[in-house]
Amino acid sequence: MHLLSRVLKRPMIGQFLRKQYMATQHGLKYIQINNTDDGYSILELNKKPVNSLNLEMCEEIVKAIDIVEADKSTRGIIVTSALPVFSAGLDILEMYEPNLERLKPFWTSVQEMTIRLFTSPLVTISAINGPCPAGGCMIAFSTDYRILADGKHVMGLNETHLGLSAPFWLCSSLKLLVGHRESERMLQLGEMNQPIEALRKGMVDQVVSSDLLMETSVKEMKKWLKIPDIGRIASKMNSRKHYIDEFHERRNEDLETFIHFIQSPALQKTMGIYLQSLKKKL
Amino acid sequence: MHLLSRVLKRPMIGQFLRKQYMATQHGLKYIQINNTDDGYSILELNKKPVNSLNLEMCEEIVKAIDIVEADKSTRGIIVTSALPVFSAGLDILEMYEPNLERLKPFWTSVQEMTIRLFTSPLVTISAINGPCPAGGCMIAFSTDYRILADGKHVMGLNETHLGLSAPFWLCSSLKLLVGHRESERMLQLGEMNQPIEALRKGMVDQVVSSDLLMETSVKEMKKWLKIPDIGRIASKMNSRKHYIDEFHERRNEDLETFIHFIQSPALQKTMGIYLQSLKKKL
Amino acid sequence: MHLLSRVLKRPMIGQFLRKQYMATQHGLKYIQINNTDDGYSILELNKKPVNSLNLEMCEEIVKAIDIVEADKSTRGIIVTSALPVFSAGLDILEMYEPNLERLKPFWTSVQEMTIRLFTSPLVTISAINGPCPAGGCMIAFSTDYRILADGKHVMGLNETHLGLSAPFWLCSSLKLLVGHRESERMLQLGEMNQPIEALRKGMVDQVVSSDLLMETSVKEMKKWLKIPDIGRIASKMNSRKHYIDEFHERRNEDLETFIHFIQSPALQKTMGIYLQSLKKKL
Repeated sequence: MHLLSRVLKRPMIGQFLRKQYMATQHGLKYIQINNTDDGYSILELNKKPVNSLNLEMCEEIVKAIDIVEADKSTRGIIVTSALPVFSAGLDILEMYEPNLERLKPFWTSVQEMTIRLFTSPLVTISAINGPCPAGGCMIAFSTDYRILADGKHVMGLNETHLGLSAPFWLCSSLKLLVGHRESERMLQLGEMNQPIEALRKGMVDQVVSSDLLMETSVKEMKKWLKIPDIGRIASKMNSRKHYIDEFHERRNEDLETFIHFIQSPALQKTMGIYLQSLKKKL
Repeated sequence: MHLLSRVLKRPMIGQFLRKQYMATQHGLKYIQINNTDDGYSILELNKKPVNSLNLEMCEEIVKAIDIVEADKSTRGIIVTSALPVFSAGLDILEMYEPNLERLKPFWTSVQEMTIRLFTSPLVTISAINGPCPAGGCMIAFSTDYRILADGKHVMGLNETHLGLSAPFWLCSSLKLLVGHRESERMLQLGEMNQPIEALRKGMVDQVVSSDLLMETSVKEMKKWLKIPDIGRIASKMNSRKHYIDEFHERRNEDLETFIHFIQSPALQKTMGIYLQSLKKKL
Repeated sequence: MHLLSRVLKRPMIGQFLRKQYMATQHGLKYIQINNTDDGYSILELNKKPVNSLNLEMCEEIVKAIDIVEADKSTRGIIVTSALPVFSAGLDILEMYEPNLERLKPFWTSVQEMTIRLFTSPLVTISAINGPCPAGGCMIAFSTDYRILADGKHVMGLNETHLGLSAPFWLCSSLKLLVGHRESERMLQLGEMNQPIEALRKGMVDQVVSSDLLMETSVKEMKKWLKIPDIGRIASKMNSRKHYIDEFHERRNEDLETFIHFIQSPALQKTMGIYLQSLKKKL
């Protein structure tokens, strides 16, 4: 179920897909980079079953960004998912009863994925086609513009339900979008939002019918690409400077906090209870 | 007119009051701490006639926070008033023709009250039952969630009417809630808001009929207490870090500014004119 | 077409113009300062044809601020335009194929104009009577309150269309008014807004029928002047401190960035293409 299969069902979208590289050409296992002739690429996340973000997936997202940024014909990327879920977020297996040797590289890759997307000179648009909890928002909140498919799925930072907290830089991302008051309450309560509510609060910029998601994203991308890169990039960096500065200043502290916090017996116990409750629901 | 008397009139609320400590048990004169079996306490401010915040009242609020935070069965507090006014704000007698020896301990207690509430690991909810000007907002803005009873009363920072300015950290609290543009204008003009307007601007999170205030506050508290403390507290501190850091960095400067500013003849004169105009209205 | 001619057509406004100094009394060429007996002055920008902000105009705005701030009977200013355009923004001739010797004094004057307005102890109100692109917003965003005449004109920061970026402090001004999410997108896309849209986003505080602009501005000014200056000024400075601190800290860096960026061949080329496209439209 990758982009081409969806395109076959929605011929209107086919027109922007002229040229297509196979993912293997870049040595990517979980991401397909679809180039177009119009100056942008579509990154399709495709790590079955739910695009969970483990160490390897985060590293591959960084690699995909490297590839598109190095291609001088590409000025923008649309990030979407080839699966029914946009991303289920950070892989719980990296955090519950974790392999201690992977903790540091894992969190470093999560940080790197976020800051690389957040600081990319490319126009970055998230086409969010399904559920987008926690780490899924790390991707979406780091792009320039978010379009969410309407439907019964939800979006938000539900970390506190597991005993976790979103890292400071994800708390900041949410605050940039919805303001302090909303973000603080949403973070503490782990609020998940229906699409229309996510739109109302400012977590996303548009909500569209699911079958118009890619078409709308492409239309939006073309609008952004009309603007000369030179001033647009400087404006983006002006707007994001405080966030970026704090990210780099506190990056090591954040890594240490994660490694320490994740090994706390109280947290592990809380996560265990949560995972048990999920199993009962299934 | 304390909580129990109100409970008698509203039996639906009685159910959450199982156990009740007398205020005197803690040596508190102006505050009654009502514990419940559900993991939270209700702090009732009861300094007649209008809960004005003088040195002793601020110190007592800090002491009440100490008491509830030390009680491991308490995970949250609802702050409300036993009087028809939530709080009339800082006691004008501490500032107009002031006792100079009290200025430093007074302002230190105001600062301490605010930062202790703002940084409490407990879930903190304000049940604002009546007028809430100036210093009343110091309390309300420092909690996690604000529920305001509907009615003819108003809420806001009217310091400039007296020639005063809200301290920087109170200006910041308002900005966190309503954004820069609204907060700057509201502060300069000393705007007071009807409940529905306070809600629209984001000063409070809910407005409810007066007779549903405590019931709604309890319901909200129970919702918050469903979230494990461990991640919720970390999320709260992530969200509030910039504010807290600046508060501590500039705390001494703020104290000196207050002591200096309050003794300015121009300010004393302006306050005198204002107080005179109030007397004429009565 | 200065204020008096407009007053003749709108007699209701005439009542606030008692006393009037000729602009030449102050040696100003492009700005008329109209004093009133009510404690405020009206600054009319009148540099034909469109109040473009070149070095001399920015310096004259600073001089006008000096004059009104030195007049102890003046507690507020209304900034408006005597021309059909509020201000067309920075003079393109200072930036396209520029006179290199003027670059540094030009940008220094732009910075000075902005920070002097932003930090003025006076009540400052913008009465925006027509188109207000880019640099026009530098003036409007630096005042305390913005009233925009309704009409077919637009307002916003369209710098990126020319390949430019708004300087960091103008990006910050917009963010203070409309929040991060809106401001970042508006800046990158160079969005221009119809009056009603500018109001909805928070770029302005009121939109009124064009013939009520001055009357409404005067009414608003009188409301602000009822507040004692002493606390109002302290509140304004509390609210604006972070902005002002960063402005001064990064002022030299901003000057160097401008001088370097403006001379980039890529930017000059992009500006040339834009100017060419404008000519074709005419």
